[in-house]
Amino acid sequence: MNIEQYLAENKAKIDASLLRYLSEDAAIPKILREAMEYSLKAGGKRIRPILAVASAQAVGGTIEPVMPLACALEMIHTFSLIHDDLPAMDDDDFRRGLPTNHKVFGEGVAVLAGDGLLSFAFELLCRGECLEVIRDVAQATGPSGMVGGQVLDLKAEGVALTVEALENVHRFKTGRLISVSVTGGAKIGGADAAQLETLKSYGDKIGLAFQIADDILNVEGDAKTLGKSVGSDAKNCKSTYPALLGLQASKAKARELVSEAIAALDGFTAAADPLRGIAEYVVLRKN
Amino acid sequence: MNIEQYLAENKAKIDASLLRYLSEDAAIPKILREAMEYSLKAGGKRIRPILAVASAQAVGGTIEPVMPLACALEMIHTFSLIHDDLPAMDDDDFRRGLPTNHKVFGEGVAVLAGDGLLSFAFELLCRGECLEVIRDVAQATGPSGMVGGQVLDLKAEGVALTVEALENVHRFKTGRLISVSVTGGAKIGGADAAQLETLKSYGDKIGLAFQIADDILNVEGDAKTLGKSVGSDAKNCKSTYPALLGLQASKAKARELVSEAIAALDGFTAAADPLRGIAEYVVLRKN
Repeated sequence: MNIEQYLAENKAKIDASLLRYLSEDAAIPKILREAMEYSLKAGGKRIRPILAVASAQAVGGTIEPVMPLACALEMIHTFSLIHDDLPAMDDDDFRRGLPTNHKVFGEGVAVLAGDGLLSFAFELLCRGECLEVIRDVAQATGPSGMVGGQVLDLKAEGVALTVEALENVHRFKTGRLISVSVTGGAKIGGADAAQLETLKSYGDKIGLAFQIADDILNVEGDAKTLGKSVGSDAKNCKSTYPALLGLQASKAKARELVSEAIAALDGFTAAADPLRGIAEYVVLRKN
Repeated sequence: MNIEQYLAENKAKIDASLLRYLSEDAAIPKILREAMEYSLKAGGKRIRPILAVASAQAVGGTIEPVMPLACALEMIHTFSLIHDDLPAMDDDDFRRGLPTNHKVFGEGVAVLAGDGLLSFAFELLCRGECLEVIRDVAQATGPSGMVGGQVLDLKAEGVALTVEALENVHRFKTGRLISVSVTGGAKIGGADAAQLETLKSYGDKIGLAFQIADDILNVEGDAKTLGKSVGSDAKNCKSTYPALLGLQASKAKARELVSEAIAALDGFTAAADPLRGIAEYVVLRKN
């Protein structure tokens, strides 16, 4: 299969749905809608929603029922980026080559745009009508999930972490939401217990591989393609895989995780080819 | 009935449940847990959760099934206060007589404590196992609810509003969450459609009365009892009911709304006495 085409086609569907869902709520104040749309439109690979779609398809499901979950995951990811970029956190002026939300709308509206996206995500999740998936996403997002990981990350700045401690930060900050993208999509797609267990393993492995690949790109990526400064992690004294393990060992670890993730899918038919392709794409991507 | 005793007893039960729910999640990073608990413990009348409990009781329900909703509502209210107090918004150093969250934990952790409470609220709502109530709360909280109201409030600072525009800000910022406290409690308590409609009317009226009473207290309250500066609204050039209508007309309007709210409950038995008592308490309270 052509994974680039699969990613492009699904990204287009997700982009359209994200804006459609927001546009359906006529009562959102104008400036808040603009701020929420600004960050939703500011690019992004849509990896989490595409994983949800691909995971549903891998177990025989279709794209429509999984779309509210897919868009909710992207809104939660976008909420976390807006808050992460704030002066009180990473203090980033640019994201994906564009001024960050608070540089355009001011800090007050940026905080509320994040809050609005998080709340709206739960409205969307209710349309999926699966209480178990709503709870999974809430747990992956909340104080013992992504938000907890952001606190660990904030407190780790300037601190030399062990590989184990770094892995723990990543598991909270990015791993759990990526994992729930895969398992949530699978649950809505109708997965059985054995399929779910396999897909959870797949999701955990590519979540970590994705983060290692991000760290590597921050070292050797191209600033123009990345849309942010190369080497910003080193400047901010952030612990990263390349800093702790070296660049070559980091690349080897990412490739190993991807191989394991693909191997985990052995019992699946060609319906799981998008998941296999996404795993490979994770370590090959350039931004 | 003795409404003061009813409020005190239910506040104690809610306070205990709030901390118990948080303590059950062992994976929350220590500093984040402290920041979330700090603001949850920092007092508050627990009006929203008590309304949910009283509303469930008014239609024959019991307290236990409504407790996750009740605590979720208080967490969402607390999240909004933490973000509202940030330097980029109201820039308040004190709340309920204590330093605000960001003064104690720093802005970064304060933003994340708010995010954590909002996410955790949705975990709790899932325990209520009522998809309709989760959606109602998400809508009342999100960009066309409370968060939208905070944006309107932020943009209204220093602007002279009409009474209609001010009422619109309040309806979004505080009215919808108070209204959903009443209707959500009623739904979990097993209300029928007619009861729900009546209780929605009650909730809308006391939501507005509560806000007018707040504005009045800001003018003539006692700083020590309030735990914040008297006259801070005037200093911040905020439009308020006393500023627009005058103090006496504002008091008359609050009393009228309370009378209408109580009259709306005419078809209810003595089981709705707590709701009647809360309505009266709204305009009699001193903080």
